[in-house]
Amino acid sequence: MNSRNESPSRNDRPIGLFDSGLGGLTVVKAVRAAMPNENLVFLGDTARVPYGTRSSDTVIRYALACAERLMDYDVKFVVVACNTVSAAALPALRRALPVPVLGVIEAGARSGWAASTRGRVGVIATQSTVASGAYQRALTALDARAHVAVNPAPLLVPLVEEGWLDGPVPRLAVERYLQPLIDQGIDSLVLGCTHYPLLRSVIEGVLAERAAQRVAVVDGAAATSDELRLHLEDSGLARRPEAQGALRILVTDLPTAFANAAARFLEAPLEGVPVEQIDITVGRHLQQPELVVAPA
Amino acid sequence: MNSRNESPSRNDRPIGLFDSGLGGLTVVKAVRAAMPNENLVFLGDTARVPYGTRSSDTVIRYALACAERLMDYDVKFVVVACNTVSAAALPALRRALPVPVLGVIEAGARSGWAASTRGRVGVIATQSTVASGAYQRALTALDARAHVAVNPAPLLVPLVEEGWLDGPVPRLAVERYLQPLIDQGIDSLVLGCTHYPLLRSVIEGVLAERAAQRVAVVDGAAATSDELRLHLEDSGLARRPEAQGALRILVTDLPTAFANAAARFLEAPLEGVPVEQIDITVGRHLQQPELVVAPA
Repeated sequence: MNSRNESPSRNDRPIGLFDSGLGGLTVVKAVRAAMPNENLVFLGDTARVPYGTRSSDTVIRYALACAERLMDYDVKFVVVACNTVSAAALPALRRALPVPVLGVIEAGARSGWAASTRGRVGVIATQSTVASGAYQRALTALDARAHVAVNPAPLLVPLVEEGWLDGPVPRLAVERYLQPLIDQGIDSLVLGCTHYPLLRSVIEGVLAERAAQRVAVVDGAAATSDELRLHLEDSGLARRPEAQGALRILVTDLPTAFANAAARFLEAPLEGVPVEQIDITVGRHLQQPELVVAPA
Repeated sequence: MNSRNESPSRNDRPIGLFDSGLGGLTVVKAVRAAMPNENLVFLGDTARVPYGTRSSDTVIRYALACAERLMDYDVKFVVVACNTVSAAALPALRRALPVPVLGVIEAGARSGWAASTRGRVGVIATQSTVASGAYQRALTALDARAHVAVNPAPLLVPLVEEGWLDGPVPRLAVERYLQPLIDQGIDSLVLGCTHYPLLRSVIEGVLAERAAQRVAVVDGAAATSDELRLHLEDSGLARRPEAQGALRILVTDLPTAFANAAARFLEAPLEGVPVEQIDITVGRHLQQPELVVAPA
């Protein structure tokens, strides 16, 4: 081990990931599966979720506060596990932080492009992400001939947060958001928000019924995890492979049914994962960090 | 005039109203209609909306920040134009503020009770308001025999914010939220969130189709305005009736389509109403308050 002269203590430092809420746990899930040796600290700004309906100035301000707080945990790398923040705040975060910063949009665009057979890629995302034009830019950067069809789907975040993952209401909402993309003949669809993978079966059902050809549904979580692994290896920051990684969750609010919601995104029970509530508006820990789930 | 020895300058001070977002403009509308002589300052915490899914600790913290900022405008009275804040934070606000504070829940409960013929009152509200038990307490305080049926309806806020005010999605969501109340034989329904009046026609349609008897639909805006007028008169704080009142709007974020959303809640165009963006997380005005709509 240590063949690349890595400093073990330096590489034991955690990877920091953050999101406006808990949707980013879908990225945590992918990273844990691919790199079970890495320590992870995830911060969900649950006191101010959602970001996707806010102005880009506000998203940048909130993102900087989240990332600054992650630096308190001595993170070696920051993953922006949120499309809205990746679209609005990546340059500001890269200027402000002393560690590398990776977003989810380029990975999502690459997955969408790879899954497309005829170069017609659809994207659903929050209003803020769509307005930023980030997916359009990322996809046409991959290939200038890409035909990109984008539609905001703002109601899908509250549907997922309410736990309405099947039945007529999500189905009708998904139909309404996807029809304009189907009409443009897309053959792959990027889920451009970390909440949307929980509606994947409704989305696939609507596409199967309404689209004239098969539409591949992809999200950026796995591709982001692949890209993170390459970055860590290239920069000599990967942790030794036989290590046992730990996950720690920080949230800014603890709403009712938090544990259920977190487990839904993580697709794993929360047992053994320490969860702490922190206050990032005042820039310090709460006097008494509340330990919700005790470490195993 | 001035028959009650009112100090004109003291009484010219504005009434401060605040809400987590723009829903409280439905209360502003009622107050403007009843007291066109009063000056009003409305603060919408649009950078952190919604409050209804957050813990009560976070709601109290956010509410204190909003109310403190209103004090900068030398308000003579504070109206909490938000059910979630009224349910969670009224005692904390009354302890913290040097002026009287009025919430919307008691007025809503009184309206619901007055509209009921058989004492079976239904309430739909946010998760946070329902969990607080505030409507149950307010209604049973009016009459211990009141039968109160309460159901959280969290998806209605994002539906209104998305502007989906009719069609199958809001109708199905409303059906799902109202059916348990209809099954309990309610004969009046309180819209326990300032967003819900915009879905009134969908709600009335579902009740007309599904309930065995007529169900009266009420909200707390008009009753809150009545109560405010009595308070002002009783305390000698009412402004001289021939004065011309002005409205000023403060928001913490300016999302896309802000003016459309505000006009929808106010049921009046925004022209002539000054709108400023302020930052309440750092406790001071933005360096350059942004004037969105110029005063007439």
